[in-house]
Amino acid sequence: MANSNNNSGNPILESDVPEVVIQRLPLYVRVLTQFSSAGQEVISSEQLGTRLQMTPAQIRKDLSYFGRFGKQGRGYDVVVLESKLRSILGLDRTWNAAVIGMGRLGRAVVSYPGFAPEGFIVTAAFDASDDIVGKTISGFEVQSISQLKKTVVELDIKIGIVAVPVDHAQEVINDLVEAGIKSILNYAPLSPLVPDGVILRGIDPVLSLQSMTYYIS
Amino acid sequence: MANSNNNSGNPILESDVPEVVIQRLPLYVRVLTQFSSAGQEVISSEQLGTRLQMTPAQIRKDLSYFGRFGKQGRGYDVVVLESKLRSILGLDRTWNAAVIGMGRLGRAVVSYPGFAPEGFIVTAAFDASDDIVGKTISGFEVQSISQLKKTVVELDIKIGIVAVPVDHAQEVINDLVEAGIKSILNYAPLSPLVPDGVILRGIDPVLSLQSMTYYIS
Repeated sequence: MANSNNNSGNPILESDVPEVVIQRLPLYVRVLTQFSSAGQEVISSEQLGTRLQMTPAQIRKDLSYFGRFGKQGRGYDVVVLESKLRSILGLDRTWNAAVIGMGRLGRAVVSYPGFAPEGFIVTAAFDASDDIVGKTISGFEVQSISQLKKTVVELDIKIGIVAVPVDHAQEVINDLVEAGIKSILNYAPLSPLVPDGVILRGIDPVLSLQSMTYYIS
Repeated sequence: MANSNNNSGNPILESDVPEVVIQRLPLYVRVLTQFSSAGQEVISSEQLGTRLQMTPAQIRKDLSYFGRFGKQGRGYDVVVLESKLRSILGLDRTWNAAVIGMGRLGRAVVSYPGFAPEGFIVTAAFDASDDIVGKTISGFEVQSISQLKKTVVELDIKIGIVAVPVDHAQEVINDLVEAGIKSILNYAPLSPLVPDGVILRGIDPVLSLQSMTYYIS
């Protein structure tokens, strides 16, 4: 399959489903949405496999973790499968997110148009610098990081997006955990430590490049 | 383990080593570099496991794919292990990359300071728009996408970085493959198709978010 940027070890998470399977489900949802928009009602594991460049057996095995979706010899109902996968992933609701760090990267993140249509709503922006706190950036009044815990509760924020320089990232991640955040997206190029029960994913193009060169060396 | 953004299915790649292991190796390299810089000469799988939030058994299994690195009861030589993993990953050389798409995202990519120190050298920038081709951006004279194949050969470019709008991404990826590129980093939010033998990784924060909400739902 094509689209991959796992910068990951294995989170020690309480789930019987392998993490790699969970990480593929959003791809299934994306592709099912495309088939659904194109008016296709039923899809086989062969078709899904071709589209995702996986084997049909792998598709069937992935989906089998969550029950029986397909009908023997008839394939999967596109709309039903998409809807069930969205429900499993928690995508049938919206999630409020806070962005920490309002430098160039953080400003790009808060103005990224791809989050809201998928249900991820940036509701607050934070920075540590007195020069930036209090300013309005992309419609957000930037708050001091000292307000994090209070704002997380008030605005029901469930996701923290870390866009601070690498030297401050672990500290900010600790602050997010302390504030009760259990889901963190980290743009800083480091491998931070988080306690059990907190899920962290990194967006790091260098790690992605470094695991591609293995195949072309 | 903490740092993860696998937006991936399984590439059908010719390697006996599971892809998830390959994707962890850059994290090992990063952490070993930190321990080495701090003056530590030997490291146990327990210590590596603690730092990467993996079990020692998983660390030993991952490394066992590549031969025997550790000495019974003595742990791994930090510098030797880092050097061997860099060699395995092809990080003991530099790689030339081309960035396709010189909009806001592409401009951020060509000026990202994190690539060159890790050996990834952006050597050419391309766009399809007549308004942009010929302009100088971040020191690059932007070339027409029609020059791609010629420039890839001339500059020995091995990596394509796709920063075009989603509607053009598959077409640009096809062009890269046609130009002989076997390693593609894709920032566009789609799951493109690539032929066998081409490795593609995606940088897509929405997919990362969508596979985190499973754990907090």
